Amino acid sequence: MTLDGFSAVVDPATTGNEMYRFVRELYPLCRSITGNGVRKTLDEIKTHIPITVHEIPSGIQVLDWTVPKEWNIEGAYIKNLNGDKIVDFVNSNLHVVGYSVPVKQTISLEELKGHLFVDPEHPDWVPFRASYYKANWGFCLSHNQLMSLTDDEYEVCIDSSLQAGFLTYGEYYLPGECSDEVLISAHICHPSLANDNLSGIAVVTFIAKLLRNFPLHYSYRFLFIPSTIGSISWLALNEQHLSKIKHGLVIACVGDPGKFTYKKTRQAETEIDHAISHTLRHSGRQYDIEDFSPYGYDERQFCSPGFDLPVGCFMRTPYGKYPEYHTSADNLDFVRPECLAESLVQCLLALAVLEDKEIDVNQKPKGEPQLGKRGLYRGYPNGGVDDLALLWVLNLSDGRHSLLEIAERAALPFPVIKKSTDALLSCGLLRKTSNHRTGHTVDGV
Amino acid sequence: MTLDGFSAVVDPATTGNEMYRFVRELYPLCRSITGNGVRKTLDEIKTHIPITVHEIPSGIQVLDWTVPKEWNIEGAYIKNLNGDKIVDFVNSNLHVVGYSVPVKQTISLEELKGHLFVDPEHPDWVPFRASYYKANWGFCLSHNQLMSLTDDEYEVCIDSSLQAGFLTYGEYYLPGECSDEVLISAHICHPSLANDNLSGIAVVTFIAKLLRNFPLHYSYRFLFIPSTIGSISWLALNEQHLSKIKHGLVIACVGDPGKFTYKKTRQAETEIDHAISHTLRHSGRQYDIEDFSPYGYDERQFCSPGFDLPVGCFMRTPYGKYPEYHTSADNLDFVRPECLAESLVQCLLALAVLEDKEIDVNQKPKGEPQLGKRGLYRGYPNGGVDDLALLWVLNLSDGRHSLLEIAERAALPFPVIKKSTDALLSCGLLRKTSNHRTGHTVDGV
Amino acid sequence: MTLDGFSAVVDPATTGNEMYRFVRELYPLCRSITGNGVRKTLDEIKTHIPITVHEIPSGIQVLDWTVPKEWNIEGAYIKNLNGDKIVDFVNSNLHVVGYSVPVKQTISLEELKGHLFVDPEHPDWVPFRASYYKANWGFCLSHNQLMSLTDDEYEVCIDSSLQAGFLTYGEYYLPGECSDEVLISAHICHPSLANDNLSGIAVVTFIAKLLRNFPLHYSYRFLFIPSTIGSISWLALNEQHLSKIKHGLVIACVGDPGKFTYKKTRQAETEIDHAISHTLRHSGRQYDIEDFSPYGYDERQFCSPGFDLPVGCFMRTPYGKYPEYHTSADNLDFVRPECLAESLVQCLLALAVLEDKEIDVNQKPKGEPQLGKRGLYRGYPNGGVDDLALLWVLNLSDGRHSLLEIAERAALPFPVIKKSTDALLSCGLLRKTSNHRTGHTVDGV
Repeated sequence: MTLDGFSAVVDPATTGNEMYRFVRELYPLCRSITGNGVRKTLDEIKTHIPITVHEIPSGIQVLDWTVPKEWNIEGAYIKNLNGDKIVDFVNSNLHVVGYSVPVKQTISLEELKGHLFVDPEHPDWVPFRASYYKANWGFCLSHNQLMSLTDDEYEVCIDSSLQAGFLTYGEYYLPGECSDEVLISAHICHPSLANDNLSGIAVVTFIAKLLRNFPLHYSYRFLFIPSTIGSISWLALNEQHLSKIKHGLVIACVGDPGKFTYKKTRQAETEIDHAISHTLRHSGRQYDIEDFSPYGYDERQFCSPGFDLPVGCFMRTPYGKYPEYHTSADNLDFVRPECLAESLVQCLLALAVLEDKEIDVNQKPKGEPQLGKRGLYRGYPNGGVDDLALLWVLNLSDGRHSLLEIAERAALPFPVIKKSTDALLSCGLLRKTSNHRTGHTVDGV
Repeated sequence: MTLDGFSAVVDPATTGNEMYRFVRELYPLCRSITGNGVRKTLDEIKTHIPITVHEIPSGIQVLDWTVPKEWNIEGAYIKNLNGDKIVDFVNSNLHVVGYSVPVKQTISLEELKGHLFVDPEHPDWVPFRASYYKANWGFCLSHNQLMSLTDDEYEVCIDSSLQAGFLTYGEYYLPGECSDEVLISAHICHPSLANDNLSGIAVVTFIAKLLRNFPLHYSYRFLFIPSTIGSISWLALNEQHLSKIKHGLVIACVGDPGKFTYKKTRQAETEIDHAISHTLRHSGRQYDIEDFSPYGYDERQFCSPGFDLPVGCFMRTPYGKYPEYHTSADNLDFVRPECLAESLVQCLLALAVLEDKEIDVNQKPKGEPQLGKRGLYRGYPNGGVDDLALLWVLNLSDGRHSLLEIAERAALPFPVIKKSTDALLSCGLLRKTSNHRTGHTVDGV
Repeated sequence: MTLDGFSAVVDPATTGNEMYRFVRELYPLCRSITGNGVRKTLDEIKTHIPITVHEIPSGIQVLDWTVPKEWNIEGAYIKNLNGDKIVDFVNSNLHVVGYSVPVKQTISLEELKGHLFVDPEHPDWVPFRASYYKANWGFCLSHNQLMSLTDDEYEVCIDSSLQAGFLTYGEYYLPGECSDEVLISAHICHPSLANDNLSGIAVVTFIAKLLRNFPLHYSYRFLFIPSTIGSISWLALNEQHLSKIKHGLVIACVGDPGKFTYKKTRQAETEIDHAISHTLRHSGRQYDIEDFSPYGYDERQFCSPGFDLPVGCFMRTPYGKYPEYHTSADNLDFVRPECLAESLVQCLLALAVLEDKEIDVNQKPKGEPQLGKRGLYRGYPNGGVDDLALLWVLNLSDGRHSLLEIAERAALPFPVIKKSTDALLSCGLLRKTSNHRTGHTVDGV
């Protein structure tokens, strides 16, 4: 069974629950752009798919950047004059500004305030902050906590380390019948934030896990990388390889109940853009298609002008457009099993469209063939074949239209067109061509 | 006088009444895709235009189809136990399912019901049904009649014949100055249904009748054919000839008071598409322009991928979009003389645009010529020449714009542009080029 | 400082007041398409910029037209039987129909009425009329004045002259670094009408005056010409020179408080069209972009098919769309200093976009360069550099996008893009190419 038949073997409810459990396991880990939290996250991913873990040494030059020192943290707190830990890393890894340098001292409240970050609009929430490339330290806390600070002095302790080490990322290559690749990437550098981006990690992991069960046209490359420096590093190390990448998706923020959002590739109007737009149009749900912009996730790097890869970004509510974004409220309540499952299904639907390279030719192109005598007219034995879809497929199967183009022009969902195509192939009214949808070289075929 | 002057000699009211009378004469005949009803219909058309009648033998292979046996019917009824004919073909030819095989027997009400067709949403109306390619018999009746059937048994009789014979169609070729053709087609296979398609037959007949009075650029080919098998047959028999067809229209459902609807050719953006869109835009009436779809009338065959002829479909309310469609309510009350006349005029306006191949060149293209000294500025002697139209024609008559393109860009009706063009030609400010609007070969010129 | 920095040296309030004073000085003069009113107007312009005055003799053939006799007027009145001057040229030069032939006679009220023009919809206003190419005489007065005429006879006197003389226009050529030209034109043929077109004269004069302070890429040619016959004459006399003109603007009706209106060039989508559309889109004000039409001001002549120059028309409320148009209500109250200033600024913004021919190339096109280490990320020392603008400029500076194209795609104002570009050039992330935005030959570079 090719990927277009995935819905027969994937139960969204079951898979949604599995993905949610996976998010829950990953949630407590303290990830950053380097360090042991990333390694533990990759270990968890390995329980699902056989990723390769890469370790890039600190100090290595990657494009215009340098791999930073590795950051790890054992604990951190703010103690009041009574000796109570009023802010403690044990309670939430968000409490420490990512990449904080080590500190242990007693300082005045006034001085301390220069190192504290809050979200006054949501006084109960703890914001997420990091300072990767500028040495600094700080704490994040709720605005209410901040308001309750009345002592003159506080003891602050951050038991972190910044040392020559490694930048760690995971990669999984799933070979298909041709060496052209689809790149699918999630960022793995955020601590306890469920939607941004444990949801993305879960959906990408499960796409990979499910694709292993199908014969594939394309080879697939899955990346689990820290934002920016991770994609920069991967691009730097794989530059000679990039021409293989024919389509790509960055997947992030896909566990909330918001509407789907797809941000197009820089090139726009590529196959991945059309495939996702088509499947969203027929999803029966609200969605937005946004033009490319150079702000966002790792598509910024993949779509930089020197690479210009056809990589789009698939989300539900986009970064910065939901109040919980980059706060403690992006938690396990904000992400839902059924939302993860819907996101997975949308991605699989679009990949099934990409996978289909079929271009068929109507063998009776002059006039309509008589469908009735082939049992295809208003009463196809297997049922469910749409008369109008049959007519559209026959009319447009002139060797110049892909199934996706036929589906678009007919304003019918791809699976409906596919089913009609299969029926017409069975009775000989269509024949597959050796043409493929794109001019890409297909190896081993 | 060329066709653009038709409005000086065609009185819509008179012609509307003539077309309506023609519809009324054709209404009682029992047409189907073959048989004597078709022959009688063609005989009536012959009283207006000298069509040639073609007879294609049953059993002949035409493209993917086979010409079916000829069907004729003498009478039919359902009798109750009292011997009353409660359903009788004499009252309406819609009562018998088209192509019903002969039957005479007494059957239970239960069994009879398997052969009865009604329209429960309109309990007084009799639906139209046919079964051309699957041997069957049946009766159509009103839902109220069905409800009144209470006897245990009924006698059914259909005195029909299905025998080797012919498929009959009519064709009229009207030569113009060049051998390029405009194809205009109406289907003639429906029994007593006034709008679908006696209205089409009337409008096509009168287009042909009127065009005979004008010198024509194109040659015109008018077809009066049974749906599907008729166009399939004509295409099969005239395949070598099809490259002559430069534009075409299928005309159907043009007698009701609904808004105009034009369904574009498969190629879309052809000259006929532009000509009809332009004239409808300036019709002062509501209209819809629809994209091609492979469901509908004989444009399905003309626009099949192996032919892909530039044939659109001109209608008022489209098939299936009015409740009277394919019922006894599509009768002589549903069709109106003035609606037939409006449809005729719209078609003639569009054909006048197609006929005009003129491309003119401004002889004073540098700056505006001084219109005042030629009596053309704000006070043209014949009146009615629009100053703005004069300026548009002068500005765009650079040898690259047809009159239709000028009219479209000026957002003015074609006849207004034409009148201004004539005024500018008269005073020498324009000169006709030998360029024509299309690259089509023009014979004998 | 190049033109894009004009806002640092031009104070809109001061300049608006200067332009308004200039309008006030020009207002009383009795201009027409020829004559001493035009000469005096050009003399006033000379106090600001060193225009050359051209005198074209009456009777000269220019394209399809003939330069008319020169018209001058000393005075005019209508006297009632009491000897009172009830209409007097001294009060308003609008009272006399432009180009009226001399007359002095006593005539009946009835006959007089054939020579009187009023605006009944605005009974207090005096309309403006002229009859340049048809010998006639007449008076314009308010409808209320007309209603008060009760005497049987009136003495009419128009002390005008129509003699062999000259058509007079002004021209100012401001050389830039290349000989390609921008043409900017205002009409100067209307008597006491403030918006149409003293506003245009003032804005064009001040554009010229300000541009003299900047090094310029283009050479600029400013025309102060009577409508129609003036542009016709200039085109006739400069035909061999026209290929130098790469962009152009006709400026008229720019002193009222209405929204901006830009009428595109006949070619449409030229650089001037894009430059003005872009600046209006970011003006924070209401505006309309209209397609070219062959009715309007001198763009009619510049855009005639034999020349087809890329000349658009910049206005606020267009001709004929405000009730004061061509009446005595188009006076010094209708035009406002701040509106003149806004119009000037919009034109300068668009010219600054035209002047910028820069195409830059990202020197670190693979991935994003690390802005932070260059002090460009979230805290640029000079402030005001927009992060998103930096990312857009980097992403699109691939040697194929002009700054205007980047600004358009980023949906950011040109000056914001320009500022980011300068910051990126300073730190070496961008380098200027020798490519220019257009393929135009650049002399002396």
